[in-house]
Formats: sequence, structure tokens, C-alpha cells
Amino acid sequence: MKIIIAPDSFKGSLSAPEAAGAIEAGIKKVLPQAQTVLVPVADGGEGTMESLVASTDGRKVEVDVTGPMNVPVRAAYGILGDQVTCVIEMASASGLILVQPEERNPLISTTYGTGELIKRALDDGCRRFIVGIGGSATNDGGIGMLQALGMKLLDAEGNSIGFGGGELHRIREIDDQHFDPRISESHFLLASDVQNPLIGPNGASHVFGPQKGATVEMVKALDHSLGMWADLVEAKTGISLHNLPGAGAAGGIGGAFQAFFPSRMERGIDIVIEYTGLGEKMQDAAIVFTGEGQIDFQTASGKTPMGVAQEAQKWGVPVFVLAGSVGSGTDILYGYGIHSINSIMSGPMTLQEAMSRAPELLAQKAEQVLRTYLAGLHSK
Amino acid sequence: MKIIIAPDSFKGSLSAPEAAGAIEAGIKKVLPQAQTVLVPVADGGEGTMESLVASTDGRKVEVDVTGPMNVPVRAAYGILGDQVTCVIEMASASGLILVQPEERNPLISTTYGTGELIKRALDDGCRRFIVGIGGSATNDGGIGMLQALGMKLLDAEGNSIGFGGGELHRIREIDDQHFDPRISESHFLLASDVQNPLIGPNGASHVFGPQKGATVEMVKALDHSLGMWADLVEAKTGISLHNLPGAGAAGGIGGAFQAFFPSRMERGIDIVIEYTGLGEKMQDAAIVFTGEGQIDFQTASGKTPMGVAQEAQKWGVPVFVLAGSVGSGTDILYGYGIHSINSIMSGPMTLQEAMSRAPELLAQKAEQVLRTYLAGLHSK
Repeated sequence: MKIIIAPDSFKGSLSAPEAAGAIEAGIKKVLPQAQTVLVPVADGGEGTMESLVASTDGRKVEVDVTGPMNVPVRAAYGILGDQVTCVIEMASASGLILVQPEERNPLISTTYGTGELIKRALDDGCRRFIVGIGGSATNDGGIGMLQALGMKLLDAEGNSIGFGGGELHRIREIDDQHFDPRISESHFLLASDVQNPLIGPNGASHVFGPQKGATVEMVKALDHSLGMWADLVEAKTGISLHNLPGAGAAGGIGGAFQAFFPSRMERGIDIVIEYTGLGEKMQDAAIVFTGEGQIDFQTASGKTPMGVAQEAQKWGVPVFVLAGSVGSGTDILYGYGIHSINSIMSGPMTLQEAMSRAPELLAQKAEQVLRTYLAGLHSK
Repeated sequence: MKIIIAPDSFKGSLSAPEAAGAIEAGIKKVLPQAQTVLVPVADGGEGTMESLVASTDGRKVEVDVTGPMNVPVRAAYGILGDQVTCVIEMASASGLILVQPEERNPLISTTYGTGELIKRALDDGCRRFIVGIGGSATNDGGIGMLQALGMKLLDAEGNSIGFGGGELHRIREIDDQHFDPRISESHFLLASDVQNPLIGPNGASHVFGPQKGATVEMVKALDHSLGMWADLVEAKTGISLHNLPGAGAAGGIGGAFQAFFPSRMERGIDIVIEYTGLGEKMQDAAIVFTGEGQIDFQTASGKTPMGVAQEAQKWGVPVFVLAGSVGSGTDILYGYGIHSINSIMSGPMTLQEAMSRAPELLAQKAEQVLRTYLAGLHSK
């Protein structure tokens, strides 16, 4: 029996590869002879780079770059097994996770580090990029990234502006003379589940600004500044970012990519499924295990278990979900190839206990689900 | 699809019938057309009477009797649908649960109330009895029960002795002249999972005395007194209770039954399975759900899920266990017809939350297990 094990991470307790290993241990207890295929996955967010590097026998490169608050940080990108595709999680260089809550300020935070990562990967010979744009601390419209790649953003006096969303309104001219020419020779596949436009009530500043530290006043100012920036970009490139779906992803970096980079935006999980070859691996499989720390109604919109299930549904392979916590509103998932949704808890316990016992609990639950499935399979 | 639902109670949150109803609700969500057969069960302890009364369309009779501490209590017995079989849980009249911890004292506590229940049922015309002997507050060798049924237990002066294990050593003569003659026309099926002898280190006083309030000194004195009592019983009946398996059940009442009553002792769950007709109902069933509040290695020795599984195994019907909490050492259960053991938790939570949400959690888990089973059933 071939069993695909394709979990996301269980945040705070298990990485995706660790989760896959735990599930495999539970399966092997029941079926030591089972052919288990471990495909740790991610939905374009945290863990995406590691997942793709692992599943293609690629490698990870660590680089010191400019962090979101203009302090150096150690970031990383991955080079896939094909040696030409680079995987970047922008959160690694410009992530909210890198900034203490009390220091968060989207007037200052910059995507410069993300641009530096791209530059380093271009130097490495990469011309195909997968960029996970999510979890950013920024609302700068992607100007930091552009600056790192040689774009001159000039104020009324012809001087280069500084970093952060607070500088956007000062830009009067976009000078692309020194913009890295290797960009136009490359292709950027953007992993994003966000369809928001750049500006307006559903735009980057209003929807995502507050969680990045923006006050009500800042949200207003940032939204206005991004509008001015979009006007300049349109004058320069002919592309209107104002209401373009996805232009508002990650503080507007989605728009910068779409205006200045040969790029295409896709749902993160779909990119991961394509690059891990998950579909091919599923074709002759009996069942699929997937999972993540928490499952709820949001899972239906592009998170890992849903993406895995949709792929499995194409091949008619049943999918079982394992999760630390199963929230409400999950019934909708049964329409998409998911057969059951199972909490890994073995009894009442605290979140802390659950996290510390996660490998054991996950293995046990995989075992129980497999045993139940086999009872059905053998009831003919 | 015919599905048997045969859970025990989930102590502290759901009675066995309530648990069965919750499981049915979960099943009906997936298979509204399924033929569900609800057989709430019990293992001879608490809930046994209710379970048998419910499954045979019997009735419950409430009676005021002498409680274990010689204070009146309202107790109950059941009359099964056949109108001649009486079901008694001795804990209803003489149970530990009726005595506050600080008042527990096996020198005083009496089984008199249990004898009164039997007398009332005899008056009602019952001649077949199922008696669950467990959970007693007593260590009186069953003399209270004998006294209530007309047995004279006389001291050196020829006077009747009083109540409790503390009186045992004063008995010099057993006078059965007025012992209820209907006893010998009846049959008593004793539900007990206890195989302990009457006396010695594995006897009633040493093993069960402390939890009934006996101090170290009391345990010694009670063990000695039960030995004297066994000598008198042997002289009277020829039956040696001293080392008889089961004679030490429920403070020695097991011995009194075996010496003076036409009786047989069986594992509680086996009696319940026989009287509920569970085996017959299983014969054309697809699957069985059972469960109880807590599953652990002790479940292997006679508790409800194990008994249900052993019966189902005879018919080759897979059994799925649902439990609030799944402890360690449960792997042994897979050898006995149990296919999977599933905690009903949906995520980290306190015991209190789990108990208050038990119906919903149990229904959801039954649904998930059924969905997983069906995935197997419908796989090629």
C-alpha cells in the first residue's frame, strides 16, 4: 500500500518534515511494509522554502541583509535541485516576525532586504524565482526591494528618498536606468493567497496595516501615499496598480512585482504542489495524510490541507486530515476530497502539553485513522 | 448499513443512553439512512440496572431502605421486561457513594439495605436476580444482607448482633430457621469483576478496606473477623469461603451469596451483553461503536469496550472505541476485536470543557470515524 504523507508544519511544535516523520512512524506501526512517500508541504508562507528545497534535493543559502527596521538580519533563500530556481520567503528578510510588537511601524519598515536576497540569487545564476510574499512587516509598496535592485526613487529635489511607507509620498520620479537588467531576463512566480487591491478600503493599508503597527492616522496616510505611488507607476509603465487584484499583497510588494518584474501570481499551495511533484506521486497511492496545527473554516481558502485534498481529488485518492485543533465550520471541506478531519489530542490537555507531546500524539492519531480506514477496506 | 451503538457511560458527563444518542447523531449526519441500533451498556457497575431496564423495556422501582451508615436512603431496583428478573446494584443501597469520605467506616457500614431490596423484589414476585456487587461501602461479609432476609446471627449470649464489620467477631451461631425460604427458590447471577478471596493479603479487607475508610488496625481486625465468620459458615454449610475466588467481592458479600444463595458469579459485562441481546443484534451489523470516559490498559480486564469487542469479534464485526481520554498501554486491545481507539477531543481543552461539550464532541468524533471507515469501504 502506497501512502502519501503531505502535512504542513504544526506551528510552534513541528516543522513539516518533522510532522511527516511522526505520521510515518504511526503508519509503520500498523503496516511496516507500507510504501510511505513523505512530501512535507507549505502553503506559500513559512516553511515553503524548506519544503521545496527538501523535496527537490536543493540547498539553502544564508545571507546577511537589511532587516525590515534597517537592522541587519540573517536571512536565507533556497536553490532548488534544478540549480536555476530560487525560492525566497520575503518574511525571511522583511518579516513581521523579525520585529518586536512595540517596534512595529510601517512608516519605517522596508522591503530592502528582500531586494538584496534577489540580487544575491541573481549573482548565483538564478533566473527563475518563486517568491512567497506573506508575513511582511512592511507597507512600502515594494519600493525597498526596488531600491535594492538599483531603481532610483527621487524626490522633488532629485534626491533619493529613504526607507519605508513614510517616504512614498515624497517620490516624484522613478528612474529605472540602473534597475538590475537581469530582472527582465528572469521570471518571478509569486506565491500569495491575497487578492486585495493596492489601495482603498480593501487595500493593503486598510486591511493589513493595523497588524503591522499602523494607527488609524497612519493607515489613512499610507493609503493616500500608495495612491500617489500607483499614479507614478502608471505614468512610467502604463500599468495601473490601484485596483489590480493582488497588488495589495504584502504591503504592496505584490504591485511592485507586477509592474516591474516578469511575474505571475498563484496560490501558494498550488505552486508548492507543482514543484514538489505531489500530483504525480499521488497517482498510484491508496490514501493521503495531510495536516497542520489548526484546521478551521479558513482552511477552505488555500491552506495546505485544502490544496493537497484538491490535488488528491483529481486522482480519486482519499485524504485524511490530522490537526492539533479542529475548529468550527469545517464541514465545507468534505466537498473537496477531504474524508475526515481528526484532532491529534488523546484526552483533555493544555496547549502546552499538546505541543510538547506533538510527535507522539500525531503518530498515534495517524495509526488510529489508518486502522479505521483498514477496517473499512477489509470489510468487503 | 446497520450500525450498533453500544457505549458505557462517560462518567461525570453522559449516561450510557445519552452517549449512545450523541454517537447516533454523528452517524446520522453522514448516513441519514443508516439503521442505528442503540444498546447502552454497562460493565456490572454503575448504570447496569438502567441499561438492562432500558434494553428490555423493563421498569424501575424505588424503595426506601437502610443505607450503609444506618440512615435511610432511597434506592432502586429494576424489573426486566420478562417481569421475573430483578436487577439490583448493591451500590444503590449500600454504596460508597452514599457516604461522605470523612464518615466512611467499615466497622459500622452494613449491607442491610441490599437485603431489603432483595426482600422487596421477592415480594414483587421476582425469582431471578442479577446483582451488581461493586462500589460498596461495606466490609461486613454480607451479614447485613443476611440479617435483612431473616438470618439470625447470635452472640455468645444468644442475642442478635448489630450492624457492620465490627460485629462479625461477636457471632457464635448462625440460625437460618427464619431465613427467607424464597431465596432457595430463586437464582442469583452475580455481576463482579473481582476474583479476590475473602481473607488474607489479597482478601476483601486488605485490598478494598482502605478505600472504604479502614485504618491499618481496622484492616487487620476485619480480616481476622472475616476469618472467624468463614469458619462459622463452613461449619454451618460445608462451604469454605476463606480462599474462594470472588468471596472477597464487595466486602465479602460475594462469599455470603455463594454460601447461602443459589448463585453464580460472572463478569459484569458478559451478563449485560447476554441480557441486552447484544450478540444477536450484532450478527448482521456492519460496524459497532462503543466507548466510555476513559480507556487505558485496565480496559482489557472486563470493562465495557473490551466485552463489546469480544462479542463483536465472534461475528467478525469491526469495533471502534470512542473515549474522552485514551491512556497508555491500549495497544493490547487490538488483539480483541477493537479496530481503533479514538479520543473525542477536538483540540487542547480542560477536562471541565471536555465534559461540558461531551455530547457535541462525541457526535463529531463518531462522524469522523465513520467517514474514515467509509473511505476504506469505498476504496477499491
